[in-house]
Amino acid sequence: MKLKILWPGKTRNKKIKDLQEFYLERINHFKKCDLIQTKEARGIPERFASRIREIEAAGLEKHLNDDYIICLFHKGKELNSVDFARFLEELGETSSRTIAFVLGGFLGLEERILNKADLCLSLSKMTFSHELSRIMLLEQIYRSLTITRGKQYAK
Amino acid sequence: MKLKILWPGKTRNKKIKDLQEFYLERINHFKKCDLIQTKEARGIPERFASRIREIEAAGLEKHLNDDYIICLFHKGKELNSVDFARFLEELGETSSRTIAFVLGGFLGLEERILNKADLCLSLSKMTFSHELSRIMLLEQIYRSLTITRGKQYAK
Repeated sequence: MKLKILWPGKTRNKKIKDLQEFYLERINHFKKCDLIQTKEARGIPERFASRIREIEAAGLEKHLNDDYIICLFHKGKELNSVDFARFLEELGETSSRTIAFVLGGFLGLEERILNKADLCLSLSKMTFSHELSRIMLLEQIYRSLTITRGKQYAK
Repeated sequence: MKLKILWPGKTRNKKIKDLQEFYLERINHFKKCDLIQTKEARGIPERFASRIREIEAAGLEKHLNDDYIICLFHKGKELNSVDFARFLEELGETSSRTIAFVLGGFLGLEERILNKADLCLSLSKMTFSHELSRIMLLEQIYRSLTITRGKQYAK
C-alpha cells in the first residue's frame, strides 16, 4: 500500500504547519507517504469561487493517476477510526493502487474531482478550516497505521 | 454568555499547545473564555484506568458550579457548525449560566461527570487524541463566534 496526500497550496499557518510535519513524520515511520502540495489559485477574489476551484482542480488532476482516490468532503461517509483503519488495511491487501487522499482548498473541491473519487470521506459533521482538516486527516492516517499494526499511539 | 473550558492537565505536545494558544487568543477577542487545566492523575499505570478517571473527575468537579455543562464524548450528539453556533447563541440569550466545556484526559471522562452534562457533544465519529480534540473544540468555539457575529473567520 502506497500513500499520497494532495491538497492545493502550502499550509500558511505556521503553527498548523509545524503540527503537519509532526504527523507526517510519524506516518512515515510506518509507511511512505508523499505529500503533494498542488497549484493554488492565488490573487483571485473569492467571488470568483468557481474559477478558483477550477484552477485548483486542474492542479490536482495532474497528480492523480490510477490511484484509489479518497476525497475529503463534508457530505462524505463518516467512519469511526477502527473502521477507517480496517478499510485502509483491506484496500492495501486487495489492491496495488496507491491510495490518494485529496483535500480541497478553502473553497472545497470542484465537482469533477469529487466525481473521480472512489470514496468520499467526512471527518466530522462540523466544518473545520481547510488547514486544520489537513491535521485531522494526518492524525487519522497515523492512528489507522498504529491500529492496524497493534502499536501504541505515540503522542 | 460566559465561557469556560476544563480539561485535566496541561497540553504536553508543544506544537499542539502553540495552536491551542492561537485559538484561545482568537476566542478571547470575541468573548472571555477561561481555560482551567484541572488536576491530572500522574504516575499511575494505565491499567488502573478507573482510578485515573476518578482522580481526574474529582479535579474537574471542583471547578463545576451551576454551569451549563457540555461534555465532549464520542457517543454524544453530533451537530454541524452552524447548528452548534445557533445552539450556543440561544443558550446565551436564554440563560445566564456559564457554559462549561469539559474534556477528558487520554482515558476519557468518568461516568459521573458525563451524568452531570446538560449536553454530551461529539466532534466526530472518529477518535482523535485528547490533545488534538482540544484544538478541534477551540476551533469550533471560535468558528461559532464568527458565525454568530457575521465576522470573517480569521485564519
